[in-house]
Amino acid sequence: LDQERIDSFRELFLDIHPYEQSQFFLTVAEDIRMLVYTYLSPSEMAEIFQNFDIEEQEEYISEMEPTYAAKMLAEMYADDAVDVLNELNPEQIASYLTIMDDDAADEIKELLHYEEKTAGSIMTTEFVSIRAHQTVKRAMQILRQEAPEAETIYYIFVLDQQKRLVGVISLRDLIIAEEDTLIEDIMNERVVSVSVGEDQEEAARIMRDYDFLALPVLDFQNHLLGIITHDDIVDVIEEEASEDYSKLAAISDDGTLDRNPFSSARKRLPWLIILLFLGMLTASLIGQFEATLDKVALLAVFIPLIAGMAGNTGTQALAVVVRGIATGDYEENSKWALIVREAGTGLITGATCGVLVTIIIFLWKGTFFLGMLVGFSLLCTLIVATLAGALVPLLMHKLNIDPAVASGPFITTINDIISILIYFGMATAFMSHLV
Amino acid sequence: LDQERIDSFRELFLDIHPYEQSQFFLTVAEDIRMLVYTYLSPSEMAEIFQNFDIEEQEEYISEMEPTYAAKMLAEMYADDAVDVLNELNPEQIASYLTIMDDDAADEIKELLHYEEKTAGSIMTTEFVSIRAHQTVKRAMQILRQEAPEAETIYYIFVLDQQKRLVGVISLRDLIIAEEDTLIEDIMNERVVSVSVGEDQEEAARIMRDYDFLALPVLDFQNHLLGIITHDDIVDVIEEEASEDYSKLAAISDDGTLDRNPFSSARKRLPWLIILLFLGMLTASLIGQFEATLDKVALLAVFIPLIAGMAGNTGTQALAVVVRGIATGDYEENSKWALIVREAGTGLITGATCGVLVTIIIFLWKGTFFLGMLVGFSLLCTLIVATLAGALVPLLMHKLNIDPAVASGPFITTINDIISILIYFGMATAFMSHLV
Repeated sequence: LDQERIDSFRELFLDIHPYEQSQFFLTVAEDIRMLVYTYLSPSEMAEIFQNFDIEEQEEYISEMEPTYAAKMLAEMYADDAVDVLNELNPEQIASYLTIMDDDAADEIKELLHYEEKTAGSIMTTEFVSIRAHQTVKRAMQILRQEAPEAETIYYIFVLDQQKRLVGVISLRDLIIAEEDTLIEDIMNERVVSVSVGEDQEEAARIMRDYDFLALPVLDFQNHLLGIITHDDIVDVIEEEASEDYSKLAAISDDGTLDRNPFSSARKRLPWLIILLFLGMLTASLIGQFEATLDKVALLAVFIPLIAGMAGNTGTQALAVVVRGIATGDYEENSKWALIVREAGTGLITGATCGVLVTIIIFLWKGTFFLGMLVGFSLLCTLIVATLAGALVPLLMHKLNIDPAVASGPFITTINDIISILIYFGMATAFMSHLV
Repeated sequence: LDQERIDSFRELFLDIHPYEQSQFFLTVAEDIRMLVYTYLSPSEMAEIFQNFDIEEQEEYISEMEPTYAAKMLAEMYADDAVDVLNELNPEQIASYLTIMDDDAADEIKELLHYEEKTAGSIMTTEFVSIRAHQTVKRAMQILRQEAPEAETIYYIFVLDQQKRLVGVISLRDLIIAEEDTLIEDIMNERVVSVSVGEDQEEAARIMRDYDFLALPVLDFQNHLLGIITHDDIVDVIEEEASEDYSKLAAISDDGTLDRNPFSSARKRLPWLIILLFLGMLTASLIGQFEATLDKVALLAVFIPLIAGMAGNTGTQALAVVVRGIATGDYEENSKWALIVREAGTGLITGATCGVLVTIIIFLWKGTFFLGMLVGFSLLCTLIVATLAGALVPLLMHKLNIDPAVASGPFITTINDIISILIYFGMATAFMSHLV
């Protein structure tokens, strides 16, 4: 009876796509998951497992029997297995590698060495390779043998005796070719590749620009170590975009979803405390102008307006420049053009908003001079704030710091300070006209 | 002599990857480009042309002879040709379609109908299809014939007599199978597909989740209209991420690079003017408290600190929630958990910053009461601002408005107003302790 239940479950379950299997798996409780582990073989589980987020993988692997887990890791694509192992502590890694068969363990050990966020860390070693002097017919035979193991069979890599990469051929070209053609006659010898220590973002950019499904990863002697496949690249692009986005809002994003207020507070507080101290600096700056404020309390009314507008334009300029650097739209030589453009943008937006605010204050308070003061401060502030928003990330890029670190709130606070200096500086200078 | 120059150029140029050809093409002046158009056939040019940004495509196509341009458009993948034509005015589109041969024109006309940002607008019609009763051998023959035209040959779609999609088979499975196997015995009948009017983001999400290289697009009667390929998806993901990013910074991003301050001011000014009016609202609110300010001018000193911190926490909460909605991490039923988490986060960050600011002001000004007032205002402000940052995008999502529209500067200005009401409300209430 029990075997019957298992069989009917397997029949239904294994018929759907692994992604859908994983979605089902996510909805069931621990006791059902424990049953699924006994119903499915490690290699069937491996297919499902690759679809989980890293936190889910961590949780589920700890539920499994160690031998089952080790077998499943061995069945996964090596790059995905390494991603999981990287989340565990060294003793756990060692114990799984010991249980695993030697071939799989060796492959994984090799990949574990590569630094995070490099081409090496996202590549897989399951690729198909052939020799240049083989025929198309022989290549197709090799392909058929290796298809079940390889992560992609749509590019075949051509190696020489020393396992150096000498060419590449797509399955598309292979299929069109005559059976007795030699690979060397039809292979593409201009292979685009990355070195193993290259940034994963750079690898993603090449694959996107060239529309590649796979990119070979070489060591410094041109030995083919592995390939990066299209699915890894989508993940990299999403990860990097999400990182830039979080930094603009001043959150430390480690890619995990927060389930409680403590973990999310931990990500936000460091930024908030820095910003609090910068805010105290702003406060002490205004404190310098207390005499001015005592005479014309009305001045205080426009502090948030001016500081706020400075923050807004700064954030806009910052976002445009950070995004431009990230997508590679800005070259070193267009730096000056960019600065001129931002200064111009600051002038146009500043003049428009300045005139507008002068008119509004005149209509509201009936005093032309106060309107002029606020309007002219706004003009100066917007020019300086826009430039600051553009220059800070450019400078960081120059110093090889990730420009996205200059977050929106950071630039906003800097621009608060600048705007208050301009506003109160002018108010103090023209005090005689105000009282 | 001239022919010799052409030949040697062609030999060198056509040997490199189309992406590299396009990069070379981008660096040369107009007169050289005009030469290249005469040296290369329309179909050779088509390969290069697909790598350009949309603005570059617009510029270059206007330089070409209309017949050359029309032939090139006909040689491009239909989805890419449609992207170009969508940028031109109706007369230009009509003139190119008239010159083109009828088959190509019909294909393009069909695609031109689909709305922007739908699955239909990014699909291509160049796919390989077979019938269920054919053998693997016959399928491979069809594949070889169609390989030069098709955008991908790695998935083959199985249609019935009415051209309805009944199955799919990957080239991988085809290669492993025996030659005389029937397609219907090995095809996958559970095909994941999208309907033609589906949002392109949804199509991208499915392809990412399932790790597909191609996704079939169906009409409401299950007829196969086209396929979406992996390269389109990378573009969609980048485009959407860049859109969310720009909105967080309150810029209208149309995906084009600004070359002059006028075009960039045009994208930023609408937002700035809205924010300016919201800022005037803040100013008039503070104006209500002029009597309070007149008595204790020192209060003004901490306005930017409190308003700034409210803006910062609001932006953080906003970014987390918008990102969560965009990546599909939040389900309808986890809404309350999210709100509770954000309230908790606001309480923790507010209490920390509040205590900190009380101590700093006590040390700096020697007055405990002012420190308490600012600290307690900060606590209340951070709770409310964090909640506002989370609730506004959730509400927008509920109302089917893109939550990313609630930009950082917008939430910041809302939180400015809230924070000032809290701060001055408390200061006015406890005025007797301050003077």
